[in-house]
Amino acid sequence: MSTDPKIAVLGGGSWATAIIKMLSENLDNIGWYMRSVYAVEHIKRNKHNPNYLSSAELHPEQLDLSYDINETVKNYDYLIFAIPSAFLKSELDKLTESLEGKIIFSAIKGIVPESGYIVGEHFFEEYNIPFENIGVITGPCHAEEVAMERLSYLTIACQDQDKAKFVSKRLKGRYIRTKISDDIIGTEYAAMLKNIYAIAAGICHGLGYGDNFQSVLMSNSIREMKRFIRKVHKMKRNINNSAYLGDLLVTGYSTFSRNRMFGNMIGKGYTVKSAMFEMSMVAEGYYATKSAYKLNQEKGARTPIIDAVYSVLYDGKEAKKVFEKLTTKLN
Amino acid sequence: MSTDPKIAVLGGGSWATAIIKMLSENLDNIGWYMRSVYAVEHIKRNKHNPNYLSSAELHPEQLDLSYDINETVKNYDYLIFAIPSAFLKSELDKLTESLEGKIIFSAIKGIVPESGYIVGEHFFEEYNIPFENIGVITGPCHAEEVAMERLSYLTIACQDQDKAKFVSKRLKGRYIRTKISDDIIGTEYAAMLKNIYAIAAGICHGLGYGDNFQSVLMSNSIREMKRFIRKVHKMKRNINNSAYLGDLLVTGYSTFSRNRMFGNMIGKGYTVKSAMFEMSMVAEGYYATKSAYKLNQEKGARTPIIDAVYSVLYDGKEAKKVFEKLTTKLN
Repeated sequence: MSTDPKIAVLGGGSWATAIIKMLSENLDNIGWYMRSVYAVEHIKRNKHNPNYLSSAELHPEQLDLSYDINETVKNYDYLIFAIPSAFLKSELDKLTESLEGKIIFSAIKGIVPESGYIVGEHFFEEYNIPFENIGVITGPCHAEEVAMERLSYLTIACQDQDKAKFVSKRLKGRYIRTKISDDIIGTEYAAMLKNIYAIAAGICHGLGYGDNFQSVLMSNSIREMKRFIRKVHKMKRNINNSAYLGDLLVTGYSTFSRNRMFGNMIGKGYTVKSAMFEMSMVAEGYYATKSAYKLNQEKGARTPIIDAVYSVLYDGKEAKKVFEKLTTKLN
Repeated sequence: MSTDPKIAVLGGGSWATAIIKMLSENLDNIGWYMRSVYAVEHIKRNKHNPNYLSSAELHPEQLDLSYDINETVKNYDYLIFAIPSAFLKSELDKLTESLEGKIIFSAIKGIVPESGYIVGEHFFEEYNIPFENIGVITGPCHAEEVAMERLSYLTIACQDQDKAKFVSKRLKGRYIRTKISDDIIGTEYAAMLKNIYAIAAGICHGLGYGDNFQSVLMSNSIREMKRFIRKVHKMKRNINNSAYLGDLLVTGYSTFSRNRMFGNMIGKGYTVKSAMFEMSMVAEGYYATKSAYKLNQEKGARTPIIDAVYSVLYDGKEAKKVFEKLTTKLN
């Protein structure tokens, strides 16, 4: 009888599906919770997620699919959460099973709107999960390219390097390279902040700024991200590593990024509300902007880009004017 | 009578034309040398450069156009060279006028193939121009966006900060922001190295790597650039400033970059020779790769990306295999 700890993924979206695909290359039994009964049944019958990343072929015989979160939490040791941060709390509220002793890995890019915490902090503060049992899985990685089996690099961060290695070994494969890190706070904040910069990139694009300016914006964004993260958690890190700069670039330069698209609509003149309505979902960077802005009121890093996005999204300021002023603060 | 030093631009390409456009916003008399008699006459009559950046409206009444390089050199104090590096030597060989006492600014991104020097070094070594009279004008800046008057940021580097300020003041305007630097070596090497990384980006794209990998490549490129430049000229610099990282990004992510296009053809299976032939011009990064590789044989920085591009361009190695191996060295 194998005593190897068992891994489950929680979430039914693109990124969850991509992680399932990676794990399926290495494991015969993977737990997978998603709330949609329909999706579970569809995957069992048709070997594809009906709603997200539907081009990826799945292997139901390797999957222990469930639409009961408590069943999955009960039966698995490593829980990889890939639920959009906006829905995390309502999913966790369903829990009757304890999370004690579980190893929690967050593959969520964003902030939990109800608590204002990044996901690792949320589990630490709300569920008393010790930090050595909390990890982060971060890109740069569009799920769509995992479906196409295009080479991608992930960073797996955990204070306990053995746990990072455990997860890393099960994710890596023919088209996935992994790297270990002990910077869970920094990688998680980077993953969250990049969505704000992607909104900024979208706003600028919508306003008519070109590629020259875009590169200046990204160059300023990575410096701002460094200042911000250093204030939150000072440690030796190379901000130009893939988990920080790479993740910023893959999002900031992606025309498929929901955050960039959201920004683009605002730059083109949509109101914040109508842009949200048109997209029929909320871009994660929307919440991240508020949280980062509020947090920085205490921390005091110089963050002209976050400030600009905040004043457009939350203070009703005109994007054109705010960004004209922003351009004088960049270099 | 004004004793203000007089500025001239040497070169007839897109970037030279863009610089003329910027200067024209601030100056009534600008020298402009280009070798094509036809182009000079066309500009005088039609107010547009017939061959490059022809959408930009020029103002011949402000321009002292000449197709005699000696006339321009004789009559002007600040000489901004914007001649492709591959043709610089043959242009300079026409000189009978002395460059003594002239202030030389290089707006050339690349290496002088005949000497193997970056442009500043070339003027220092071959023309005894003291380093305090040498400056660099660098992006991130596509000339095409200057023509469209899209906001762009330039870095003006010179050891003598007064000279940098002098040029800066005459370039900046409604759609041009400028920044002063004293890192002429670093900014020039960055401008040269980025073309090699753009070739690498193109090769990867041609080979079918996606956006996830592209962001990892760029993240590794900026770290490699930092290691390389530090070996060449160690000083305090923030490699994430626009003149380094911004310039890398605007080129590496541009589908219009000749260097990226050249790499793309090679990734798709063209031989180096046929890619050059198809493009009917040599991408600057082609020479830069050889020079950077050779220079690094002495310097000893870890440069897996430059090494990979070199072995494809100069050792006839197969791009697919070389880049597969490269992916194991990145993270």
